[in-house]
Amino acid sequence: MHTYRKRDYPLNDARRHIETGPIVLIGSAHKRETNIMTMGWHMMMELEPALIGCYIWTENHTRKLVMASKECVINVPTVDLVDTVVKIDNSSGAEIDKFEAFDLTPVKTTKIGAPLIKECYAKLECRLHDARLVRTYRRFLWEGVKAYVATSPKNPRTIHFRGNGEFMTAGETIIRRRMFKPEML
Amino acid sequence: MHTYRKRDYPLNDARRHIETGPIVLIGSAHKRETNIMTMGWHMMMELEPALIGCYIWTENHTRKLVMASKECVINVPTVDLVDTVVKIDNSSGAEIDKFEAFDLTPVKTTKIGAPLIKECYAKLECRLHDARLVRTYRRFLWEGVKAYVATSPKNPRTIHFRGNGEFMTAGETIIRRRMFKPEML
Repeated sequence: MHTYRKRDYPLNDARRHIETGPIVLIGSAHKRETNIMTMGWHMMMELEPALIGCYIWTENHTRKLVMASKECVINVPTVDLVDTVVKIDNSSGAEIDKFEAFDLTPVKTTKIGAPLIKECYAKLECRLHDARLVRTYRRFLWEGVKAYVATSPKNPRTIHFRGNGEFMTAGETIIRRRMFKPEML
Repeated sequence: MHTYRKRDYPLNDARRHIETGPIVLIGSAHKRETNIMTMGWHMMMELEPALIGCYIWTENHTRKLVMASKECVINVPTVDLVDTVVKIDNSSGAEIDKFEAFDLTPVKTTKIGAPLIKECYAKLECRLHDARLVRTYRRFLWEGVKAYVATSPKNPRTIHFRGNGEFMTAGETIIRRRMFKPEML
């Protein structure tokens, strides 16, 4: 399976690989248990600190782990992992070890206990910033504390879920930097 | 400028054009004033009803209008509008009429007062579902009440912001319907 060479990445640039709306894989751990879930419902909520809101169903096994550990890793997969993403989505961490079942490599993180997924293009170690909305809105607010992004390619072919078993993959890049006011960049 | 033939669209399929994470244009109106803002920080929060969370800065002129009217239209532009999107992002509705300045056509909606943008591929009329988090999190929760989507193409080239004046455009489609459990579709 394809793996990426990772490098440290400025935290406030993490939005580059989150804000475009890709499916991400949430890595979690508590005690000896680890899990991975797919997530498409997330949004940036602040650049500095890097805050990311996401929606986790009450039924998801990951919910239990992240509520206990208050940590997760947001891993950004690329198109080569699309089948693995679907398998992760269609199985439960309550029944299987997804790292083992889907041949993914857990990597120790620097700042938290949950594992990175080596095969993913970008990884963001997160601490739970605010859990006040979990019960009423199922909304978790994460603070990115350490980011890694592959050295190449610069523009990854991320996958974006359309529902109904269908994905869109990241296409061409368009640069309009010169049209922006300096303070808007 | 390119316009789309619109048709009514099932509300619970609206996620198809939101969840992939495109830049959207928020149309708003209050009394005789209308406005348009760009938005990249949004996420699905429920399918039925179609709930969408989004982040609107306190400084945005749109914030005033939507707080007063409790309505907005989420318009999904495609790549042909990328320059217009940048211009909308780099100007303020407090100073100009963006529909007029950028040659966009406001269209009357069915269920609410804010205007659709004719030139956009998909449109979702929304009512403010919950404003409780506006002050603490700048988070608005919208309920889609009526959707329109162009008859073609089926897979629009939406634009996705990477920050720093750069966009990714929607690329190829990948279908994995058969790999999903029926209850996951």
